[in-house]
Formats: sequence, structure tokens, C-alpha cells
Amino acid sequence: MLVVAPDQPQSGMSHAVTINDILRVKKSTLHEGIEAYSCTGTPVDCVKLAIYKVFKKKPDLLLSGINHGANHSINVIYSGTMSAAVEGAVEGVPSIGFSLLNHDEDADFSHCHATIEKVIEGALKNGIDKNTCLNVNLPDKEIKGIKICRQGNAFWKDNFEVRQDPMKGEYYWLKGVFTHLDKGEDTDIAALEKGYASVVPVQFDMTAHHSIASLNNWEF
Amino acid sequence: MLVVAPDQPQSGMSHAVTINDILRVKKSTLHEGIEAYSCTGTPVDCVKLAIYKVFKKKPDLLLSGINHGANHSINVIYSGTMSAAVEGAVEGVPSIGFSLLNHDEDADFSHCHATIEKVIEGALKNGIDKNTCLNVNLPDKEIKGIKICRQGNAFWKDNFEVRQDPMKGEYYWLKGVFTHLDKGEDTDIAALEKGYASVVPVQFDMTAHHSIASLNNWEF
Repeated sequence: MLVVAPDQPQSGMSHAVTINDILRVKKSTLHEGIEAYSCTGTPVDCVKLAIYKVFKKKPDLLLSGINHGANHSINVIYSGTMSAAVEGAVEGVPSIGFSLLNHDEDADFSHCHATIEKVIEGALKNGIDKNTCLNVNLPDKEIKGIKICRQGNAFWKDNFEVRQDPMKGEYYWLKGVFTHLDKGEDTDIAALEKGYASVVPVQFDMTAHHSIASLNNWEF
Repeated sequence: MLVVAPDQPQSGMSHAVTINDILRVKKSTLHEGIEAYSCTGTPVDCVKLAIYKVFKKKPDLLLSGINHGANHSINVIYSGTMSAAVEGAVEGVPSIGFSLLNHDEDADFSHCHATIEKVIEGALKNGIDKNTCLNVNLPDKEIKGIKICRQGNAFWKDNFEVRQDPMKGEYYWLKGVFTHLDKGEDTDIAALEKGYASVVPVQFDMTAHHSIASLNNWEF
């Protein structure tokens, strides 16, 4: 097992890569008996560094997380945790991202073990489809089971909290309200609301294939 | 017309949002006669600030770019320019991202005008499908026409250039080699290679729907 992790919080970092700055990697002794490295970059930088610099080969399995906080529905596009798993898929590595529906620093992960083991065992036994990875979200309390889902439709209705610095300069904090737009029973949001862990297969072909036919009728 | 743009380069910033830091917005006088603001955040922050703070309503059309450098194929997931357009789509705003296949600071954009006008006219006349936006890439020279495409399959085979700082500390620069995995004639890469501008409809449902049936047969 090899760990490569960012050296600071990367919330909302999405699929960002460090192009305009340098990267540093340090050996970490945080977990005894585990070969671990901390990196100055983003979660996706960590995947690239792990495969091409530290490990120097592709691992059998890439696990990202566990993230503090939900990465269901639209959050998949903002999430650094899930982007690391997507980057694994881009690299052809079977990859799974895990997130817990609890933001607390001291969140309890102990109820997640059995579910995480089942998903990993399933992935090792059955494989994960080429060019996909898995997005696993875990309820904060007792887990009733595992449901395969699609990404629910939702968005963040944003607002900005306005504050003044000591020099009377105005600044903002981003503060969104999660807004659910999907009553489907097959979504990750619905499964989590009912106490199930959600597993969504995620791809990186973002083409809206259903739109191509009508676009071909535009007159240019 | 209203412009909200990042105050520094945001290459590879993807769909990142600023959660752990403050945001500032300044009125810009860069372009005479155009109401413009610069923001300390990411391209996606700019979209959120424009809609919820500066403009305080949804615009009729959101244009992102023109980016210096290609955002075809897999680049769509790393691109800040395209993520701003995707964020517009999430917000229900007709959105288009434009990128030029030229990284130079002093790149010539003059040959792009007619093509960009055609795409914008098409979008205003026909509308853009709900929950999608358009990814438009423009060849560096004469544009032969416009082709509707799917996202080509490709990845960046990364390597890291190792350097030493004056204190003998090691650091890295990310340096990837673009690696094409898709011989399809209907991809954005193929269209651009033949001198056409590529238009790919992009969605933000990342579910790999084709994988759901087989995942439902995993035994948990």
C-alpha cells in the first residue's frame, strides 16, 4: 500500500492540476508501517505524482477519501476526492472515491468499514468498467445496505456573505444552499436519504451525445 | 454586457471553487465602455459571483474564454474556461466556452470572429439543450468550417521535471505529453486536425449509465 495525499485541505478543488507552480513531495511518518507521502498539490496532482513519480507504475486499485462531507449529485464536479478517482480512471486504474455525509473534524468512520470492504471486494472480483470509476457516499449513521444509483440532479443556490476587513475593504465568503431538483428514486440523493450507501459509476466522457443530432441541424 | 474575470491566470483550475479563502471583486477599467470586474477566485467563482452578486440575475448568454490553448477531448475536465461554461449550464444559463489552439501570449484571434459569431447566432436562434453547454475549439489558422463532434478519448502521459532549489531541495514541474487514444472521425481532435472548428455539447451528468446494469449484479 502506498499513500500520496495533499499536505493541506483541498475542499472544492475539483480536477485542478498545478501548472503554474512547483510541486514538492515529502515522506510522511503519520501512519506507522505505511509508506506515505505528502504533496503540495491538488488531489489530482497526487494521483499523477503517485503513478508517474513515487510508485512509478499503475497500482491495482486507487482509493480516494474518505472525504468529510457528501459528494453525491452535482458535488461530483466540485470534489477533489472524486476528481482523484476520475483521474485514476483516465489513467486506466480501477478507482473508487469514498465520502461520508459528515463534515465534522472528528467524524466517526467506524460504521463504514463493512460497506467499504464490500465495495472494494466487489471491485476486485468483478472489475470496474473501462473509463469509469465509482463514487461511493456513506450515510453518517447505520448503513442499511448498498444501492447502485445515477447522479441526482441538483445545484448550489449560492449567496455570498459580505464582510469588511479592518481597512474597510469588502470581501466575500461563498455560501451555497444545496438545491435538489430530482425526485427520481434511483438517484444517489434518494438512496442516502433512505439510509443506504450510494454507488454511482462515473465516466469522464462529458459529451451530451443526445444533443449532437439537433446541433447537426444548426445552419452555419 | 458584463465581464467578470479572474485577476490572474487560472490554467488547469478545472471546476475548483474557493471555499477555504475569501473572495474579493474589483471594478476594472481595462476595456473602455464595458462594465467589467476582476475577481480573486477561480473561473467558476467568477460565474457564481457574476450571477449572484454582481449581475444579481441570470444573463441571457454566458461566454467563457477565449482560452489560450486547446480544450478539446480530455482537456475539458482540467479546463477552467470550460468549467465556467459548465457552471453556467448548472445554473440554467445558455453557455459557451471558446478555446484557441495557440498558447502564445500574443496569439492572433482575428481569424476566429466569423466562426464565433456563427456559433453565438446559432445558440441564440436555436437555444442550447437544458443541462448542456457548448465546447468550441478554434484552429490556430484559417478555419474551414464548423463540425459538431463528440469528445475524443485521450489522456496526458505525465512526467515530472525534477529541479533543485538553491537550498538543494527537490521540486517538480508537471509536464505531460498529450496522448491520443481515439481514431474516430467524429471526435473534436479529428475535426481540429482537419482545420475545422469543433463544437462538442457538454453535460454535467457524469453517470456512466451503461455500467449500472452490471453493477446491479454485484453481490453485496
